[in-house]
Amino acid sequence: MAELSVTFPDGSVKSFDQGVTSEDIAKSISISLAKKAVAAKVDGVLVDILEPITHDATVEIVTKDSKDGLTVARNTAAVLLKLVLKQTYPEIHFGEARADEDGFFVDTDKADGQVSADELDGLESKMAKLVQAKLAVEHVTLSTADALSQVAGDPYSTELVNDVVDDKVSFVKINDELILQDGPQLQTTGDLKQFKLLSVAGAYWLGKSSNPMLQRIYGTAFYKKADLDEDLKQREEARERDHRVIGNQLDLFFVDPKVGAGLAYWMPDGATIRRTLERYIIDKEVTHGYQHVYTPVLANLDLYKTSGHWDHYREDMFPPMDMGDGELLELRPMNCPSHIQIFNHHIRSYRELPLRIAELGMMHRYEKSGALSGLQRVREMTLNDGHTFVTPDQIQEEFTKILKLMVEVYSDFDINDYTFRLSYRDPKNTEKYFDDDEMWNKAQSMLKGAMDDLHLDYVEAEGEAAFYGPKLDVQTKTAMGNEETLSTIQLDFMLPERFDLTYIGSDGQEHRPVMIHRGVISTMERFVAYLIEMYKGAFPTWLAPHQVRIIPVSEEKHGNYAEGLRKEFAAAGVRVDVDTRGEKMGYLIRDAQTHKVPYTVVVGEDEVNNNTVSVRRYGEQETKTETKPEFLAEVLDDIASYSRNGKPAENQLEKKLDAETK
Amino acid sequence: MAELSVTFPDGSVKSFDQGVTSEDIAKSISISLAKKAVAAKVDGVLVDILEPITHDATVEIVTKDSKDGLTVARNTAAVLLKLVLKQTYPEIHFGEARADEDGFFVDTDKADGQVSADELDGLESKMAKLVQAKLAVEHVTLSTADALSQVAGDPYSTELVNDVVDDKVSFVKINDELILQDGPQLQTTGDLKQFKLLSVAGAYWLGKSSNPMLQRIYGTAFYKKADLDEDLKQREEARERDHRVIGNQLDLFFVDPKVGAGLAYWMPDGATIRRTLERYIIDKEVTHGYQHVYTPVLANLDLYKTSGHWDHYREDMFPPMDMGDGELLELRPMNCPSHIQIFNHHIRSYRELPLRIAELGMMHRYEKSGALSGLQRVREMTLNDGHTFVTPDQIQEEFTKILKLMVEVYSDFDINDYTFRLSYRDPKNTEKYFDDDEMWNKAQSMLKGAMDDLHLDYVEAEGEAAFYGPKLDVQTKTAMGNEETLSTIQLDFMLPERFDLTYIGSDGQEHRPVMIHRGVISTMERFVAYLIEMYKGAFPTWLAPHQVRIIPVSEEKHGNYAEGLRKEFAAAGVRVDVDTRGEKMGYLIRDAQTHKVPYTVVVGEDEVNNNTVSVRRYGEQETKTETKPEFLAEVLDDIASYSRNGKPAENQLEKKLDAETK
Repeated sequence: MAELSVTFPDGSVKSFDQGVTSEDIAKSISISLAKKAVAAKVDGVLVDILEPITHDATVEIVTKDSKDGLTVARNTAAVLLKLVLKQTYPEIHFGEARADEDGFFVDTDKADGQVSADELDGLESKMAKLVQAKLAVEHVTLSTADALSQVAGDPYSTELVNDVVDDKVSFVKINDELILQDGPQLQTTGDLKQFKLLSVAGAYWLGKSSNPMLQRIYGTAFYKKADLDEDLKQREEARERDHRVIGNQLDLFFVDPKVGAGLAYWMPDGATIRRTLERYIIDKEVTHGYQHVYTPVLANLDLYKTSGHWDHYREDMFPPMDMGDGELLELRPMNCPSHIQIFNHHIRSYRELPLRIAELGMMHRYEKSGALSGLQRVREMTLNDGHTFVTPDQIQEEFTKILKLMVEVYSDFDINDYTFRLSYRDPKNTEKYFDDDEMWNKAQSMLKGAMDDLHLDYVEAEGEAAFYGPKLDVQTKTAMGNEETLSTIQLDFMLPERFDLTYIGSDGQEHRPVMIHRGVISTMERFVAYLIEMYKGAFPTWLAPHQVRIIPVSEEKHGNYAEGLRKEFAAAGVRVDVDTRGEKMGYLIRDAQTHKVPYTVVVGEDEVNNNTVSVRRYGEQETKTETKPEFLAEVLDDIASYSRNGKPAENQLEKKLDAETK
Repeated sequence: MAELSVTFPDGSVKSFDQGVTSEDIAKSISISLAKKAVAAKVDGVLVDILEPITHDATVEIVTKDSKDGLTVARNTAAVLLKLVLKQTYPEIHFGEARADEDGFFVDTDKADGQVSADELDGLESKMAKLVQAKLAVEHVTLSTADALSQVAGDPYSTELVNDVVDDKVSFVKINDELILQDGPQLQTTGDLKQFKLLSVAGAYWLGKSSNPMLQRIYGTAFYKKADLDEDLKQREEARERDHRVIGNQLDLFFVDPKVGAGLAYWMPDGATIRRTLERYIIDKEVTHGYQHVYTPVLANLDLYKTSGHWDHYREDMFPPMDMGDGELLELRPMNCPSHIQIFNHHIRSYRELPLRIAELGMMHRYEKSGALSGLQRVREMTLNDGHTFVTPDQIQEEFTKILKLMVEVYSDFDINDYTFRLSYRDPKNTEKYFDDDEMWNKAQSMLKGAMDDLHLDYVEAEGEAAFYGPKLDVQTKTAMGNEETLSTIQLDFMLPERFDLTYIGSDGQEHRPVMIHRGVISTMERFVAYLIEMYKGAFPTWLAPHQVRIIPVSEEKHGNYAEGLRKEFAAAGVRVDVDTRGEKMGYLIRDAQTHKVPYTVVVGEDEVNNNTVSVRRYGEQETKTETKPEFLAEVLDDIASYSRNGKPAENQLEKKLDAETK
């Protein structure tokens, strides 16, 4: 028999017979490895442990305790789910089914209604019986013709089979049933130790919104109970924080793919939060010397040809609109070209620099429908955008100013869980970047210098800079564990060239400015999603859509007092309402807590007689009695100090610098 | 000779010979009429007074003192302008040239540069010489072939000649020169008594932005000097009020057709005014029980098919965007369908009605490029929009509430020059309207009842209602004299049907609500244009982009004091700046007046020593010395009371009702 040579991850090389399996290879190394082995990566591709190897290759044995190992168990779980669904609903059709490091899913179309979440327990029990039966899991490869007759009548599976190009369609055979499924499998159903069906949700066939909506069943699987339990706990915690879940509970926003995927409708309470944010950040930026503008969301496509977006970013842009008179209008993908119009509307002098143009700029990005998620990933968004035009010498000072603004804003929101990342050009591939060595060196050292002067911790990432300049990103994580950029400061040497921007220097000559793109609180959509998850829906008083809820013990007897209180507080600028539904007191108080209203105020006989209020703060058990002016002052102070949980906001940077200079 | 019969405006009929001219007819009536006659309307068409009449017709003699009479003089003025332009620039090409009741214009393309405003006086003198020469003005009709050789080399005139369908191309002959021009003419150049060239501006050939830009020369003409003088005075006044002129002087906004016709860029000062307005109207509406939302500018085209916009309003809509996955997205032409999504997101109870949804809703309308004008007519606009969902019985009370809100808002802006117009359906053509007689009768009487209860004056317009319900419009006029709708309240019986809107009544059954569309301050664009013209750019303190300007007598000696003052005022929420340019005092004070800053504060030796300020109010000559706290209190009071010219805003409706109940 011919031999082939296998290279292992540690670089060692060994010879085996043609057609050796990864299982054989694992056994040749050690019994313990063979016991843990569930698949292999052959030349980087995850394959079944029993698949024969027919040529020289690198081989990495995949064990149960690796991420890829989990994928194998989940792939078998997906097959078992299909099997029990087919037993339960013989007419069911299957769309895509996949397993990965997050879990697995199976897309289904049951001609008559949909699989509901209530059925998951029953399906799980049926799967468990197959596991107990310890049935062999076999791989079967059919020709396309045979595969088509095997899946006949199922339009989705038919399409999937037709997409296989090499006439080898992978099926899995259990109990004489053939299930269409690709990828490595456990060897018997008995090896599937721990699994769980999680949820159901709609999913378009192949992710296209013009296709039929299928029902996607999610699940996960592990080798150890402790791992499954930990995963379920994390999922539950993430679910409780998930801004989509809280957004729905608190009626903050909704997205309806029927009227437009990725297009958010902000309900009144969500809109109140957003409006408060918008006013806050505009006022803050104006105080910091920014000039806020409004610029149109549409522009002639030529603008984005000049800027380079049309050449380099087209797939994220919306299709241009042909206006019939030769004009092509484009929904803007970014606001920078608009702010360049503002800069260019006048001849600029060095005396005007740094010139800071800011806007809550609406823009549109064509995200794939599969990537859309609540407010986090949308197609229409409003960015807290700003562009500063500086002389090259002003880079460090302006960068420091923006950093201070950011830290001040983070303090007001009580944001503490973030990391700074400085991105430089790749020193080994400088030709990939905007061509001005001196400018790059100067700018990168200025950015680093600013971070060091402020004693901020940061990581440096060589080769992560944009083509047009170095940048600083502030990274955070979503409830779902995805990394996300909260703020960014990006230098840009290119756009000033492309638009031929100039200012008149003190020498009377034209000079080229540098542009700094910066976003402090990113888009209104993403930031509100972030805050919902960070606060778990319990917004600090200044942001809460309802700040004070007044509950009269008896509408008849104490309603007037409650309404007087409401008017007084509303006139002072407090968002206050009276609950006049007349339900039981316990219910109304619980309802205020469920809606995470910062202050619940009960007024009854004592309060009316003594001109006081009984106040309960969100999250606290005790109730305090206060005079009206005391309570109003407390609420107003709470709002003005951006307090969270009774603790006023503090400037973290000032605190840090104070501590260091002590 | 055959006879024909002529019918006069008074209904009388007379016989004349075939080929009679209007001049002959005028002479047959009276010598004095013949003297004043300059043209005629034959079957409603304005024709030359010497044109033979060849068939039975209605004839109206056009005299110098009529609007049509002025058009004749202006048409001759346009021809004289072409003539002198051709003498001056033999290679010049002519685009369109027209005369009407507003004046006349000639579009020109001078191969080498453009005709400039500086040349108008010279051209006028040359025209005056032709007038003095009292030359005959003759009509000459050429075949298309002859006309083409006459205008050979002029691409625009060639296109105009080719557009003539009946092979009869009208020229005017003066001094043996042939000028392409249609329409009635004076008989000699000497009849052109008073004329004036007014201005030059770019204009696209045939009004299409994809065509070359020509230079349009504007002028006017009259028969009497007094009329010309009055017209020039009115033009100057309108020009001084014109929001485009003031907007440019005060650097409030600009529109650049190169990046998009009808798309406004708001410069920082204009943006400050808009932002102040936006916050004002949102806060006002929230106080009045509106729930503000944010909804997307894009939606699936199906939404506008359901609403009926796509069928009935398509020509004003932007082209849909094909997203490639079967989805067609449309920029919304109106916000109502979006607010219906908000209403429909929950099952609604009668207890929630009236439900008031409001938004500063951005929308897009495809206005023809010729109709665009500064901020008044734009393609992207943000509407102060609101939709109230009511039970039929609530119509009158809600209508009254909206009226009160409007009058309150008008008072705050000191808007007094407006009229109310109630529009009903046409009682003779009720089948043209939404089919519910009882609803129409009830609603119309409720609207009228509300107006009467408030003792408001209004006009009633039968047949002016929309298809879907009666309405109230509030009409004003722009500086240019165009009527414009400032506010509107429109009942809508149709959209609730189309979207099958329901609420659960007290009977537990589903009922159909009525929708009320209402806009108080129209679009941000139009309203700011309106305010600029009404205030002539001198915004009241609360709206002024710069409220207080501080000028130190010496930057070195008094700069610190000025900066301290600035900080103190800024911290109190005042928009204040220090003029540090160090120019001469007189210049800086004049500059503050030119920019219409409400308060100019000078600080020098005395002020620093006594801790005072020297204050000059915009539009006043005298300067007052005040203590800092006195002045700050004055400014804050000015802002809080929406004062204009020192007079606090008053609620006109309250005042009126008070006066009537006395």
